[in-house]
Amino acid sequence: MKLYTYFRSSAAYRVRIALNLKGLAYEAVPVHLLRDGGQHLAQEYLAVNPSALVPALQDDAIVLSQSMAILEYLEEAYPATPLLPQDLVGRARVRELAQIIGCDIHPVNNLRVLKYLVKHLGQDEQAKTDWYRHWIIEGFRSLEAHLARNPGTGTFCHGDSPTIADCFLVPQVFNAKRFDIDVTAYPTIARINDLCVDLPAFKAAHPSQQPDAE
Amino acid sequence: MKLYTYFRSSAAYRVRIALNLKGLAYEAVPVHLLRDGGQHLAQEYLAVNPSALVPALQDDAIVLSQSMAILEYLEEAYPATPLLPQDLVGRARVRELAQIIGCDIHPVNNLRVLKYLVKHLGQDEQAKTDWYRHWIIEGFRSLEAHLARNPGTGTFCHGDSPTIADCFLVPQVFNAKRFDIDVTAYPTIARINDLCVDLPAFKAAHPSQQPDAE
Repeated sequence: MKLYTYFRSSAAYRVRIALNLKGLAYEAVPVHLLRDGGQHLAQEYLAVNPSALVPALQDDAIVLSQSMAILEYLEEAYPATPLLPQDLVGRARVRELAQIIGCDIHPVNNLRVLKYLVKHLGQDEQAKTDWYRHWIIEGFRSLEAHLARNPGTGTFCHGDSPTIADCFLVPQVFNAKRFDIDVTAYPTIARINDLCVDLPAFKAAHPSQQPDAE
Repeated sequence: MKLYTYFRSSAAYRVRIALNLKGLAYEAVPVHLLRDGGQHLAQEYLAVNPSALVPALQDDAIVLSQSMAILEYLEEAYPATPLLPQDLVGRARVRELAQIIGCDIHPVNNLRVLKYLVKHLGQDEQAKTDWYRHWIIEGFRSLEAHLARNPGTGTFCHGDSPTIADCFLVPQVFNAKRFDIDVTAYPTIARINDLCVDLPAFKAAHPSQQPDAE
C-alpha cells in the first residue's frame, strides 16, 4: 500500500492515523505542496489524483483520493480493528462528527483557499490568520456542542475506542494549536485529543514523525 | 421522517434526491436561511443541529446532520434501491466522487463563507461571484477528469443506476448554472446531469418544487 502524503496535510494525517490503528503497513510517498511550485501540481501526481490534492491511497488496483472515502475503504477492506461502531446509529454519528470537521472546517482553511485570499483578494497575513481561526472556532463550537450533548460520547468521540471521528479530530486540533487557538475552551474536544495524542498509532502519524517532516 | 431543509441548499437537495430515489416519504420542515435573521440560527433549530446548518434528518430516535452522513445512514437503514454499489472498489469510488463535490467545492461556497467575504474582507458582489465561480470551475475540472478517465463511469457517475455521487452532482450543477458557468465545458458532468434531471426523483427534489420555494 502506498500513501501519497504531505507531513503537514491534515487530510493525510487522518489517513496515517487510521492505517496505524489498523496496523496496516504502507509506503509513504511524500508530495511537497510548497516545493517545486507544488509537487501536487506536477503531471506525475495529476496522473495519480487529478484533483491535485493529498492524500491519495494506492492499494492493489485501486487509487483513491478524498480522506473520508479512503477511511471508509480501509474499514471495508480491512475490517479488523473497526473504526466505525457496529450499530446503525453509532455509525451515523461517527460519520457526522467526522464530517463536521471534514466539510465545515477543513476545506475552508485549505492551502489553496488561503492562497486565493492573498493572491486574488489582496488580504494580508493578519486577515489570513483571522480567517483560519474563525472557521476553526465556529467549527469547534459546533463540534463541542455535538459531543457534549450526546451520551454516545465516551473516552473517545464515540464510545471507548477510537473511531474515524477521532482520526479527524486530532489533526484539526493540531492545526488549531498551530494558530494559537485555546483548545481548552472546548473541554470535550481537548479531553479526547489529550487522550489520543498519547496513543502509539496517533503518535506515529504526527506530522513531526513523517519522513518528509521539516 | 422529518427533513429540515431549505429549498436552495444544495446539501438539502442531495438528501431530497436520495429520499425520493429510495421512495421514502418525509415531512419537509423549512428552515429559511435568510428570513428572521436566519432561522437556522434560532435556538429552536440549534436544539436540532448545533452546527446551525441544513439539512438535518430526524428518523425515529436519531437526529442527524451532514448530508454525506445522512446518505450513508439512509443506505444502511433502508437498503432497498441501493445508492452505493455492491463491490468494494465501486463503493469507494462513489464516495470519492461525492466528496470531491462535498469537500472540495461546496464548503468553500457556503452562504456563511460568502457572507464573511463581504462583511469581514470588504469584498464586493463581483469578487464574491468570481470566488464562487472559481471553486466550481476548479472542482469541475477535477471531477470531469476523475469521471472521464475511469471505465466505471456509465450512464451515471458510476455504472448505469443512480448513486450517492449523482445525488451530489445534480445540486452542484444547479448551483453552477445559477452562476452562469458553461457546464458543457465538462462533457461527462453535463451528460450525466442532463440524464438525471429528467428522472422523477430528481425532478421532485428540485429547489423550484419545494414547499418553501420562492
